[in-house]
Amino acid sequence: MKATKRIAEATQESLHRIFTIAEAPDSTLGRLEQEMSQNLVGFLNNHIVASKNALTDIEQDFINARIPEQPEFVSDHMHHLLDKLVAQSVHTSSPSFIGHMTSALPSFILPLSKLMVGLNQNLVKVETSKAFTPLERQVLGMMHNLVYQHDDVFYKNWMHSAEHSLGAFCSGGTVANITALWVARNKLLKADGDFRGVAREGLHRAMRHYGYQDLAILVSDRGHYSLKKSADILGIGQENVIAIPTDEHNKIDCQKLADKCQQLAAQNIKVLAIVGVAGTTETGNIDPLDKIAEIAQQNQCHFHVDAAWGGATLLSNKYRPLLKGIEQADSVTIDAHKQMYVPMGAGLVIFKDPASVSAIEHHAEYILRKGSKDLGSHTLEGSRPGMAMLVYSSLHIISRPGYEMLINQAIEKAEYFADIIHQHDDFELITRPELCLLTYRYAPKSVQALLARNDDEANKSVNMLLGKLTKFIQKRQREDGRSFVSRTRIEVSRYGGEKVIVFRVVLANPLTTKEILQGILQEQCQLAQESEQFLPELLQAAK
Amino acid sequence: MKATKRIAEATQESLHRIFTIAEAPDSTLGRLEQEMSQNLVGFLNNHIVASKNALTDIEQDFINARIPEQPEFVSDHMHHLLDKLVAQSVHTSSPSFIGHMTSALPSFILPLSKLMVGLNQNLVKVETSKAFTPLERQVLGMMHNLVYQHDDVFYKNWMHSAEHSLGAFCSGGTVANITALWVARNKLLKADGDFRGVAREGLHRAMRHYGYQDLAILVSDRGHYSLKKSADILGIGQENVIAIPTDEHNKIDCQKLADKCQQLAAQNIKVLAIVGVAGTTETGNIDPLDKIAEIAQQNQCHFHVDAAWGGATLLSNKYRPLLKGIEQADSVTIDAHKQMYVPMGAGLVIFKDPASVSAIEHHAEYILRKGSKDLGSHTLEGSRPGMAMLVYSSLHIISRPGYEMLINQAIEKAEYFADIIHQHDDFELITRPELCLLTYRYAPKSVQALLARNDDEANKSVNMLLGKLTKFIQKRQREDGRSFVSRTRIEVSRYGGEKVIVFRVVLANPLTTKEILQGILQEQCQLAQESEQFLPELLQAAK
Repeated sequence: MKATKRIAEATQESLHRIFTIAEAPDSTLGRLEQEMSQNLVGFLNNHIVASKNALTDIEQDFINARIPEQPEFVSDHMHHLLDKLVAQSVHTSSPSFIGHMTSALPSFILPLSKLMVGLNQNLVKVETSKAFTPLERQVLGMMHNLVYQHDDVFYKNWMHSAEHSLGAFCSGGTVANITALWVARNKLLKADGDFRGVAREGLHRAMRHYGYQDLAILVSDRGHYSLKKSADILGIGQENVIAIPTDEHNKIDCQKLADKCQQLAAQNIKVLAIVGVAGTTETGNIDPLDKIAEIAQQNQCHFHVDAAWGGATLLSNKYRPLLKGIEQADSVTIDAHKQMYVPMGAGLVIFKDPASVSAIEHHAEYILRKGSKDLGSHTLEGSRPGMAMLVYSSLHIISRPGYEMLINQAIEKAEYFADIIHQHDDFELITRPELCLLTYRYAPKSVQALLARNDDEANKSVNMLLGKLTKFIQKRQREDGRSFVSRTRIEVSRYGGEKVIVFRVVLANPLTTKEILQGILQEQCQLAQESEQFLPELLQAAK
Repeated sequence: MKATKRIAEATQESLHRIFTIAEAPDSTLGRLEQEMSQNLVGFLNNHIVASKNALTDIEQDFINARIPEQPEFVSDHMHHLLDKLVAQSVHTSSPSFIGHMTSALPSFILPLSKLMVGLNQNLVKVETSKAFTPLERQVLGMMHNLVYQHDDVFYKNWMHSAEHSLGAFCSGGTVANITALWVARNKLLKADGDFRGVAREGLHRAMRHYGYQDLAILVSDRGHYSLKKSADILGIGQENVIAIPTDEHNKIDCQKLADKCQQLAAQNIKVLAIVGVAGTTETGNIDPLDKIAEIAQQNQCHFHVDAAWGGATLLSNKYRPLLKGIEQADSVTIDAHKQMYVPMGAGLVIFKDPASVSAIEHHAEYILRKGSKDLGSHTLEGSRPGMAMLVYSSLHIISRPGYEMLINQAIEKAEYFADIIHQHDDFELITRPELCLLTYRYAPKSVQALLARNDDEANKSVNMLLGKLTKFIQKRQREDGRSFVSRTRIEVSRYGGEKVIVFRVVLANPLTTKEILQGILQEQCQLAQESEQFLPELLQAAK
């Protein structure tokens, strides 16, 4: 009984402590924090161990489903986190981690995030966010301006209007895409006569009322998987996301798009939205947005641009023309946590028409009352953190010309990497970079010569073997932990549209040097030699 | 030309600096960070000014939609943020901010969030999260265990299984509720014979195949607005969320629920899900979950519990019985950023059946490949931050008994506040706390006596006047900025179910003292006196 009381008292005391007093700077946590503030890259280098532990081994450290019955000291817990979590996490900001779109972060982000977390605002309503609400509206305005370039009067009229919104801030691009298509669906199937609209009556009644056979979402076969997810969630069905073939530059074939629209119209299938991709996930290419806009116009359907990754290119005056036509889109998705160097959790969808969001408006008694400026009345999410502050600060501290430099340098670095891959005897460049993304594979000169004979049957088996080799190299490289490229499977027109497995590289980290890129090719050559099965077989075939 | 070059060089230099070197500890940002680390409450007290600025005034500071053409120094920007943003934000962690569910944060959260942000993992896939993936799976396991209390063998089998998941980590409760109902919809309208399932073919074909007249979601009239939002998004329609009346304790009337189910069955309307509420947003009450489970069982429909707010009560052995029956739910929503004292952005949905998530599985070529343990294959969101780490750390550092203390004390504090409101001549307690939430209003003794006469006609106009007075007091109190309660409009059975406007109080902050609560009543009495119109009219009427 006495022991129970003692434990209770100790717990009580520790509770009071953790809500009032911070860690002393000389505690483990305080020390680590300081170390991190002073040199994030150094801290990560020291603590993220390039361990070859398999995931199944790591899982052994995270196996207990019981909630602890005893409080742990903060310092002890911190040691545990360092050993078991940090040491085995991924060094996403490493200059040789060039496989995904997760960005390195500018150093000012860390203290600002701490401020954001400490303020713990909830953006769903003004009562828990106050100045954060106009700040988020301004960020949406700036991003709207980046896409649509309206004059100051436009933003004066709409940016802070209670009944309007220039977009919605989201946790990421998937929620942004869902939100855009949700708006498109609700606008298309709006109230009409006795019918009270899809939002109120549901999709099957809407379809009955409007008499469509089906709805369709059209996007190139390079569209992101979140579009199928959106179609599933919104009740439209994944199969109604229709993949339009791409040309040899991975851009949508506009003739085929137009033909498909006509064909669907003849079948009484209504095109809900055409989605243009500005920066495909797998090859980094940009659809001809201006031509898509025309086709969308002709077919009177919503035109959405998924610029989750490539949208930041608009900040570069030099490369902005690649996205020509984006200003005709009804909605645009841009992820700030990709090429805008903001931490994970910052996506946006921007709407051309400030009244669009009325299609998805929701109200409640305790918040989001009509006429309020609460942002939560037109977001998919409810409670949300003040991430918009980090976008706001980045736009001010880096500024447009700063972003332009980051973007231009990334593209030029990708061009350099493409050049050295192309010149290298043992590598085959698969897709040239249009933005800072490219794909390639390891393929010895003799094997490339074999492929060049265009013998379909032979190429099939060579490509299959090359695929196995690519997988082998990529996996080993990832496990070694010094550098990282990702891999994917894409259709390659020079092989008759056959799907081949390739390395995929995203060169967004400003600290990645030419030497690092050269080193990555060297490392991959070495790893290829270690493949005891695939490489010898390939070389044999190419003899 | 020379100037342009100089600007370019300066920008280049500053870019390199911001990606490599952190702020010196004696810079503005460094100083503020240190101040914040050492005493968060003090920092917030010093910097969040109780300004009476109206929102429209604050908006003037956030009016420019142009993206800056010149980079700003980090220190300058920090001063700007302090003046314009921090000073005008809401002191959510103040012990006298008792109006919403946004929590005060334990001090260890700040340095840990910085670590989380610095690591910038992306939980969509193992390749960008590594140990964070098993960590998140463990957190889902612990929360599953909290609800369902299975044995260790169960968690050994399912917690880290690639084809299964015990839940989905989300940005918040709304996404959690949508996910739960998405699973329910896709399981109900699954593939069957020639029909390939709602996920692939869409909702209107599913309805045609299964021949239902409509779908319905049943929840008490205290259900959260996110359920209507979910029904809209999922294509079910807001009007098909059917509100079942509550009893005088704001709990669903189970007889009426059962009757409605029968009535709907007779109309060929399929009940997709019954939703039990564990902690209503407006009154904090818990539905009789065990009885709802029985009805759901009889009607063979999905039973979801929205415990976004009240779910943390399961951590208290003393109050856990209030949620009896939750272990029969097919899915449960719990927000860690509410009563688990984790910062904004941490919601969870837990599934009883580890195979449930297969109903919403998505794959892609570059990630989420079949058989991978990538968490993104069954979450609504795509890229996501490592917020699960903060839940993990809180569960370890605070531990279950620590949470129990926090929860028990909060409930007992609410009971104390209810008592002093009840004893006070000039206040009327509207709803007693079951958890740490209660509602009340200012109503002078004589006015309460008038209401007690039960003259419907008179009460209507008195309640309307009291509503205006409540709004007046709440608004003034919020603007004065020393303390904050929220307000809502709820049906009150003692006034024949009339909707009245009330103050709403959530007592989750462990630093809120009895003295603060007494002070809030005092402040409200004073503010009432300042109402030059409503109070005199009320007193006149009560004469």
